[in-house]
Amino acid sequence: MNTLNQLQLDQLNDEEKNIIEQVLKGFESKRQGRTTSYVSAMYAMAHEFDGDTLKITMPVTPIVHNSLGIMHGGITATAIDTAMGTLANKVAPPAMAAVTSQLNLHYTAPILEGDIYAYAKVIHHGTRSMVIEGWVETAEGKRAAHATGSFALIDRKK
Amino acid sequence: MNTLNQLQLDQLNDEEKNIIEQVLKGFESKRQGRTTSYVSAMYAMAHEFDGDTLKITMPVTPIVHNSLGIMHGGITATAIDTAMGTLANKVAPPAMAAVTSQLNLHYTAPILEGDIYAYAKVIHHGTRSMVIEGWVETAEGKRAAHATGSFALIDRKK
Amino acid sequence: MNTLNQLQLDQLNDEEKNIIEQVLKGFESKRQGRTTSYVSAMYAMAHEFDGDTLKITMPVTPIVHNSLGIMHGGITATAIDTAMGTLANKVAPPAMAAVTSQLNLHYTAPILEGDIYAYAKVIHHGTRSMVIEGWVETAEGKRAAHATGSFALIDRKK
Amino acid sequence: MNTLNQLQLDQLNDEEKNIIEQVLKGFESKRQGRTTSYVSAMYAMAHEFDGDTLKITMPVTPIVHNSLGIMHGGITATAIDTAMGTLANKVAPPAMAAVTSQLNLHYTAPILEGDIYAYAKVIHHGTRSMVIEGWVETAEGKRAAHATGSFALIDRKK
Repeated sequence: MNTLNQLQLDQLNDEEKNIIEQVLKGFESKRQGRTTSYVSAMYAMAHEFDGDTLKITMPVTPIVHNSLGIMHGGITATAIDTAMGTLANKVAPPAMAAVTSQLNLHYTAPILEGDIYAYAKVIHHGTRSMVIEGWVETAEGKRAAHATGSFALIDRKK
Repeated sequence: MNTLNQLQLDQLNDEEKNIIEQVLKGFESKRQGRTTSYVSAMYAMAHEFDGDTLKITMPVTPIVHNSLGIMHGGITATAIDTAMGTLANKVAPPAMAAVTSQLNLHYTAPILEGDIYAYAKVIHHGTRSMVIEGWVETAEGKRAAHATGSFALIDRKK
Repeated sequence: MNTLNQLQLDQLNDEEKNIIEQVLKGFESKRQGRTTSYVSAMYAMAHEFDGDTLKITMPVTPIVHNSLGIMHGGITATAIDTAMGTLANKVAPPAMAAVTSQLNLHYTAPILEGDIYAYAKVIHHGTRSMVIEGWVETAEGKRAAHATGSFALIDRKK
Repeated sequence: MNTLNQLQLDQLNDEEKNIIEQVLKGFESKRQGRTTSYVSAMYAMAHEFDGDTLKITMPVTPIVHNSLGIMHGGITATAIDTAMGTLANKVAPPAMAAVTSQLNLHYTAPILEGDIYAYAKVIHHGTRSMVIEGWVETAEGKRAAHATGSFALIDRKK
């Protein structure tokens, strides 16, 4: 890959450099096994689980802004879906994987900056499906989004 | 920003280099005004509008994969929300901006690779809100997701 | 049941008598096998199927009004869910029954009177689930509601 | 209305008589102002409000069964939408009415008989809209449905 060189990097503005920095740190995090996808790596998602609620912490920087300068609704959905999916796979039987089959989100406040926290909690645990509740709070404790999702439990490939 | 240097780039593996390439091309696209956010820039979204349906084309590469190696449901939501939001803002009255207030998605098939196409079409156009339908098709023409969303029309800041 | 007598009926006002009339006609319709539940019987639902779209016709009378004098959102949901469920069970494999697992509705216009038409169409037909689209139009052709629903295919009891 | 006479009533079977009884009791309840619509009257809904959560109690009888002999998903939606809407109008500013603009439901267990309890609680209270959470529990305490809804606040007609 010849095109990736110092010349290109020197031409970046500060905002772009910050984004590349965040992406490179994400690569490092993924190599070390702290995240399992480029999506959560690039958005610097970190998760905690207390046995009941799964919590993802994620910084809001220009990398997630939409054209209005607020957090893109799709990336808010990504944070919530990641929290829900991580939880679903933690509580699913070992031989099964959980995949999102449906997701409904309400956006209740714009997110500008600072860390956000995405939470997920099981509402219903069936034999072939789960319903999970998720929500996002801003650093100031304001609820910015609320969601519920359906997850299908499928047999893991052996 | 001293930490961003050739040394770091040389240590990247091919998959990571491809991602950095895609991100740098996105920066270029954003600087030239072809995209208006880093989100659509980094995911290389391109849109077309025929006066009725808005279509976004987007490549599926490891940058959008989840830990199962298929397209992350949140990024599918991002493609659909971007198509819907772009459409909503095109058809909204000039003095108003459209923001997602609610989004419901059904995931109907996993997305592995190739380009995907996200479509959006207005279902209901009210004075303070819109309902928009969106869906994603794979390169093979399979419907991978179907969504409906509510958009609030708010006065643009002057 | 001694309490059900002519005395009670004589005390009803005209609106109440009309409702009792509608309910009694529904019983007749159910006895004759034209409807299979008291819900569709009492609301005088009639359905047609053209091999693709299922259509339910239903009169809007005070029996379905909410306290604001417009059609109750739950009864609109009932019309749509009935259209979707009837369709789902028509297209499901013979050994399977389809049950609603999730339903999302957008209400786009109030319904006052006249007949309404609830439509349902399959969006996705999987092996264990379906996604179905439904909508309601007023007698004037205005879209009053739009919905999508997930249906689980379960083995019929033998 | 000549057609409504004792002859018709004598021909009803026990199940039908029970339904007519329930409907007539509902009329009485509505006349006395305990319910404000025929929908909640006929389904014998009673509500309580503790300042935070609104609770509706409702009996499950054949009047609400679908063709499979379980509670019709649309009527479950009606119970939840009634709980949410009643709550929304209680907490809305006096000059405003709340109308459902969107409703998403997950069905998590079939409802066979006994009383059900539909609950509603405010998640987000904005100036022009609210997001409300609702759920249904069976007499045995099992969660049979979970929902979230968007309500638009509109100026009351003067």
